[in-house]
Amino acid sequence: MRKVGVAILGLGVVGGGTYKILTEHREMYRKAYGADITVEAVLELRKDRALALGVPESRIASSIAEICSNPDVDIVVEVMGGVEPAKTFVLAALNAGKSVVTSNKEMFCKYSYELERVAKHNRVGLYYEATCVGGVPVIRALLDNLQGNVITSLVGIVNGTTNYILSKMSGSGADYSEALKEAQRLGYAEANPTADVEGYDATYKLSILSSLAFHTKIPYTKIYREGITAVTPADIAYGKQLGYCLKLLAIGKNTERGIEVRVHPTFIRQNHPLASVNDSYNAVYITGDSVEDVMLYGRGAGAEPTGSAIVGDIIYCATHLQHNYSTFDNTEKASPSTKFVNNFESAYYIRISAEDKAGVLSKITSILSRNGISVAQIIQEEDKDPDGKVPIIVVTHVTHEHNINKAVQDINAGTGDYAAVSSVIRVYD
Amino acid sequence: MRKVGVAILGLGVVGGGTYKILTEHREMYRKAYGADITVEAVLELRKDRALALGVPESRIASSIAEICSNPDVDIVVEVMGGVEPAKTFVLAALNAGKSVVTSNKEMFCKYSYELERVAKHNRVGLYYEATCVGGVPVIRALLDNLQGNVITSLVGIVNGTTNYILSKMSGSGADYSEALKEAQRLGYAEANPTADVEGYDATYKLSILSSLAFHTKIPYTKIYREGITAVTPADIAYGKQLGYCLKLLAIGKNTERGIEVRVHPTFIRQNHPLASVNDSYNAVYITGDSVEDVMLYGRGAGAEPTGSAIVGDIIYCATHLQHNYSTFDNTEKASPSTKFVNNFESAYYIRISAEDKAGVLSKITSILSRNGISVAQIIQEEDKDPDGKVPIIVVTHVTHEHNINKAVQDINAGTGDYAAVSSVIRVYD
Repeated sequence: MRKVGVAILGLGVVGGGTYKILTEHREMYRKAYGADITVEAVLELRKDRALALGVPESRIASSIAEICSNPDVDIVVEVMGGVEPAKTFVLAALNAGKSVVTSNKEMFCKYSYELERVAKHNRVGLYYEATCVGGVPVIRALLDNLQGNVITSLVGIVNGTTNYILSKMSGSGADYSEALKEAQRLGYAEANPTADVEGYDATYKLSILSSLAFHTKIPYTKIYREGITAVTPADIAYGKQLGYCLKLLAIGKNTERGIEVRVHPTFIRQNHPLASVNDSYNAVYITGDSVEDVMLYGRGAGAEPTGSAIVGDIIYCATHLQHNYSTFDNTEKASPSTKFVNNFESAYYIRISAEDKAGVLSKITSILSRNGISVAQIIQEEDKDPDGKVPIIVVTHVTHEHNINKAVQDINAGTGDYAAVSSVIRVYD
Repeated sequence: MRKVGVAILGLGVVGGGTYKILTEHREMYRKAYGADITVEAVLELRKDRALALGVPESRIASSIAEICSNPDVDIVVEVMGGVEPAKTFVLAALNAGKSVVTSNKEMFCKYSYELERVAKHNRVGLYYEATCVGGVPVIRALLDNLQGNVITSLVGIVNGTTNYILSKMSGSGADYSEALKEAQRLGYAEANPTADVEGYDATYKLSILSSLAFHTKIPYTKIYREGITAVTPADIAYGKQLGYCLKLLAIGKNTERGIEVRVHPTFIRQNHPLASVNDSYNAVYITGDSVEDVMLYGRGAGAEPTGSAIVGDIIYCATHLQHNYSTFDNTEKASPSTKFVNNFESAYYIRISAEDKAGVLSKITSILSRNGISVAQIIQEEDKDPDGKVPIIVVTHVTHEHNINKAVQDINAGTGDYAAVSSVIRVYD
C-alpha cells in the first residue's frame, strides 16, 4: 500500500472540510485507489481550531519549515487564502520537493507563472481545481476533455455571494443592502464583502479559466470589472418584464477581433441554462468549435464542495506518476501577440428617467440612431417614479460599447434637464 | 515534436467528425500540446466515404491486420458501433501494442473487463469518454474530480433520441409515433429505433457510469429497463398540470439497502435542473457526500460533439506517459457482495379510467391504503375520455414498487369492470 502524507496549511472553512473528508474516507481510498492518505501535519495559528477538528497535538506544526523538512509529507494543501504568506509557503513546499494543491484563486491567478516554473523545475505537481467554482469539475474539463476544441466562449456564474444576493433581490424585490445583510447573516458573504460584490473574485477566476480555455495568459488586470453594488430592484423588475434575469457574469470570448474578458451585471434570457443557476450555485457555460455547448453546474463554494475538489486533486496527484502543467504559455504578462478588445460587442438595456412631455422619445431615438445604435424594443412606462419622472426602457440590438457610451453622454447632455440615463446594463445573447 | 499516428475504424457520423477535427486542428495541437497528431490509416468498407472526407487513398487500409502492423499507428479509434467485429478489432489493436479510444458503449459495457485486462497486460491506454453522453465530460469527472466522494446517486438524461421525442410530445402534444417520425426525419432517430426507444442504449451508459460512480461492476443486465413507446400525450399533459416534466431517466442509487439501477420514463419537477434539458441535449446529475450536487450538460450525440470527446481522449493518451484504468474491480459479473434492490423506493403517478359513479374513489383509496400507500394528491377530471370513462389521477408519497404492483392488481381485479389502471409512471423526487 502506497503511503501518501498530506499537510494542510490553514484550517478555516475549506481546510476543515478537507481534513474531515480525508479522515472520514481513509479506508475507502485505501480500497479504491491503493493509497493510504493521511494528514501528517497542519499549520494553523489557532491551535483550538485544529484540536476541535480532532487533529492530534503532535501533528500541529509550528512553521512551514517544519512541514517542508517532514519526510512523511508528500503533498502540501494550501487553503489559507490571500497572497502572503501563502505564496512564500507554497514556493517553500515546491522547493522542498512537495507537490502542492491549492484553492487560492488570488495567489494562483497572480503568480501561477512563477509557481509553475518552480513546480516543473522540482518535478512536483501543482494542482488548482479548487481555485475555480468549488466542486464543479471545470479545470480538468478544460485540460483533459475539451482540449481538442477551439474554445470560442466561456461564460460563468463564478461567485456564490453575488449570485445569492442577485437571486434574493430578484425573488423578493429586496434592495441590494438588505440582500447583502441576509447573505452575511447566512455566511454567504463576508463582513467585508468587497472582493465578492465588486467582482474582484470573479476576475481572478476568469483569469485562470480563460487562460486555460484560450491557451494564452489572460492577466486579471486585463479584465473589465463592474460589481453589483449599483444594481437596483427597479432594473431587475423591468428586466423580468422583458424576459431577462440579472446575473453577475464572467465572460470570456475569443473572437476574430481579439479576446474580450469582462465581469459585470448582465441580463440573460430567462430560458438560458445559466438563468436557472440560483442562490449559491455556480455554473460555467463553455462553447467550443466541435463540442458546441457544455454547462458544468454545482456548488461554487463551501467547506465540503471545495474540499471535494481539493481531495480530487490529492488523489489524482497521489495516483499519477507524471505531472502535467498548464497547456498555455504561462508567463507573467500577456503575450504581445494577444489582442484584447475593449470596445465590446453587446446588446444593451438602458433606463432613462424623463419628464412626461412630447418629443422626448423622438429626441432619444434620434440620438441612438445618430450613434449607429439600432433599437430592439422601447417601453415607456405610464406610472411615474417618485421624482415625477417617467421611466423609458430601451433594449438595443448588438452594438459596440463605445457607441453606447457616446449615446449616454449625448442623452445626458443633449436632452438638457428633462431626461437622464439612470442605468445601463449589458444584455447577453 | 512527438509524432502520434491515429487509425480510425469506421467513418460513419462519429468517425467522420473525428477525422475532420483532427485534420483541421493539427496545427493547433502541434502548438498547444507539442504533438503532431496525424491520421495514418482508416478502415472503412465504403471507400467512397473515406475519399469524400479527403482521406488519401494510400491511407485506406484493407484490414485490421494492416493497421495493427503499421508502425506509424499509435492510437486506434474504434467508432464502428455494435459488438462484432468491433470487439475483435479492438482486442487485436491492444494486443499489437496500440492504445485504443472508443465510443462504442454496447461493446465497452459488455466487455470492458476483458478489454481492460488486455490493455493493462500490454501497458497501453484504453479510453472511453465518448461512450457516454457525447461531448459532456462525465467519465473523467467521475475518475479524476469526484473520486474523493461517496457517490450516492447519478441520474441522467443520457439518450438524445428519446429526449428529443419526449420534448416534442411535451411541446406540441404530438403522439409517440408522430414524434418518432419527426425525429427520424431530422436524423435524431435511426430507421430501426429499438435500441434507443426501448432504453437499451441508456442501460449501456448507466452500466458504465454507475460502475465508475459506485466502484463496483454494475452489469447492464441488472438494470431495470422500460422504454418510452407506451408514453401517451394524455399522461404528459396531466403531469404538466401537476408541475412535472416527463423524461427517460437513467437512475443509479447507492443506498443503505443496496444498489438501485433503472431506466424508465419518469416525472420530474419542472424546476429541477434536469427538467430544462431539452431536445437532443443530455445531462448527468451527480450527488456525492462532499460535493453535494453537480450537473454536467451538453450535446449527448452528433458527429462533432462526440468527436470532441474522442479527440480529448486522443490528446490525453498522447500527452500522458502513464495510463490509468478504471478505479473499480472490473469483472464480468457483479461482485457477490454487491446487493441489488429491485423493490425500488419511489413516488408514483397512477392514471385510472373509471366509470362516473359514486363510491369508485373510495374503493380506490381503500385499496391504496390497504397496500400501505400514502396518497399525496388525487385529481378526478370532470371531462370524460372518448370511452365515456373519467380519468382519476393519483400521485403517491414515496412507497415501494411491490406495493404499487399489488395495488394495481387489486384495482384492476377488485373494482371489477368499472375502473382500470391506464398507466403508472414513477415520480423522481
